[in-house]
Amino acid sequence: MGPSGATQRIALVLEYDGTGFSGWQRQPHAPSVQAALEAALSRVADHPVEAVCAGRTDAGVHAAHQVVHFDTAAQRPLHAWVLGANAHLPQAVSVLSAHAVDDGFHARYAARRRAYRYVFLCRRARPALLAHRVGWTPKGLDAERMHEAAQALVGEQDFSAFRAAACQAAHPVREVFSVTVQRHADRVLIDVAANAFLHHMVRNFAGTLLAVGSGERPVDWPARLLAEGDRRRSGVTAPASGLYLCGVDYPPEHGVPGRPESPLLP
Amino acid sequence: MGPSGATQRIALVLEYDGTGFSGWQRQPHAPSVQAALEAALSRVADHPVEAVCAGRTDAGVHAAHQVVHFDTAAQRPLHAWVLGANAHLPQAVSVLSAHAVDDGFHARYAARRRAYRYVFLCRRARPALLAHRVGWTPKGLDAERMHEAAQALVGEQDFSAFRAAACQAAHPVREVFSVTVQRHADRVLIDVAANAFLHHMVRNFAGTLLAVGSGERPVDWPARLLAEGDRRRSGVTAPASGLYLCGVDYPPEHGVPGRPESPLLP
Repeated sequence: MGPSGATQRIALVLEYDGTGFSGWQRQPHAPSVQAALEAALSRVADHPVEAVCAGRTDAGVHAAHQVVHFDTAAQRPLHAWVLGANAHLPQAVSVLSAHAVDDGFHARYAARRRAYRYVFLCRRARPALLAHRVGWTPKGLDAERMHEAAQALVGEQDFSAFRAAACQAAHPVREVFSVTVQRHADRVLIDVAANAFLHHMVRNFAGTLLAVGSGERPVDWPARLLAEGDRRRSGVTAPASGLYLCGVDYPPEHGVPGRPESPLLP
Repeated sequence: MGPSGATQRIALVLEYDGTGFSGWQRQPHAPSVQAALEAALSRVADHPVEAVCAGRTDAGVHAAHQVVHFDTAAQRPLHAWVLGANAHLPQAVSVLSAHAVDDGFHARYAARRRAYRYVFLCRRARPALLAHRVGWTPKGLDAERMHEAAQALVGEQDFSAFRAAACQAAHPVREVFSVTVQRHADRVLIDVAANAFLHHMVRNFAGTLLAVGSGERPVDWPARLLAEGDRRRSGVTAPASGLYLCGVDYPPEHGVPGRPESPLLP
């Protein structure tokens, strides 16, 4: 801490390729985004920094727009946090912007809406250019059918059927604001926005919608699974490689941008 | 060769991430796409295979749609070449399709049109998700101005001003069919189609158009450079990471598909 002891809270927007990380969260013996970011920020601040994120992504999951906050006693112009962090971060992580926020801002607790995108590459040959960037399926997928089926997932509901066994959340109710499924050439994009997510929830949505899109399951399958509430009956969890955290929204008074600049993913 | 000695010519459409390769062409002590593909095809064929490509990409240059041909004495269903090659190829290379062609087909000499895309990511922060997949510039680019400037590059012309010093081509005249520059969110895409290309020609186009788009050079700069014919006066060569071979067209009687399925790159 500086001699005055006064601290400033800073929010950062972050992009990362999750392939080489064990996830956001710091772990004793595995590389994490959090440890890489904290090491870089600590060098810029010249004191130890702890970072709190909006959404703790799993191993292999990417972020186009993650939001974090940290407190610092260092006086730096905002752009120095961007440039300094990027100079010390590995290539797979990039700080996009920095924002001065008041102490009432909290990257996790102040977030009102989080948006994830799941990307399936649908073609017979495995990906090369998009290796580690998509979920791959050689099955033909009917995106309109998937979109129709996905509408049952919208609303404030008990999502126990789409929750990982290891999920630590206190209760299984979340509010899903929207799910849209659209095809772009050989890709099928599943966009999900919610107030918050259970562990593996989007990947379980994606695995379930995959089975609907390929015709293996009926259009009302997600609705039935929700009603039954039994994870063991739903689709397989889609691979982490296709999942992107791509937006976090806060009350506007915090001045933290909610949406990524680029909707082209990947 | 098989006991009969009869051979069949096969054409393949290929995708690759060029990051880890010294380029298409086989080299004594560096990994090449050609060596990786020939090793995989030789295992499927059970005899040594030599592959000829449509466009010899440089180190770090990608392909969304490269075409190659090879001759084999092995009798295999076409899909066995795709599945077998992909089982033996590194993750960065994927065979998309296989086509039986007659002996008159030649991946390089029969090609009538080649299409490349150059992708600039335009933002202040360096890429993380698109590391090794784009050319990055923190400069703001005016894509409409670049498009206007690029029209001077269309036509059958002497492209000496955009030719690498090491270029081996017999003469500097090529016919450029079209150049289009368009912005998508934070990306600027430069699409160039020509009968053939000189060494570094698209990367020299991209570097020159970058200087026009950022306002450092006037809109008529490409036209002036063409008229002067002096490589030393033109823009810097843009990095290999932003370049994609994305289509090769043949006379339709060969039955080799000319365009990639997906126009979303990257």
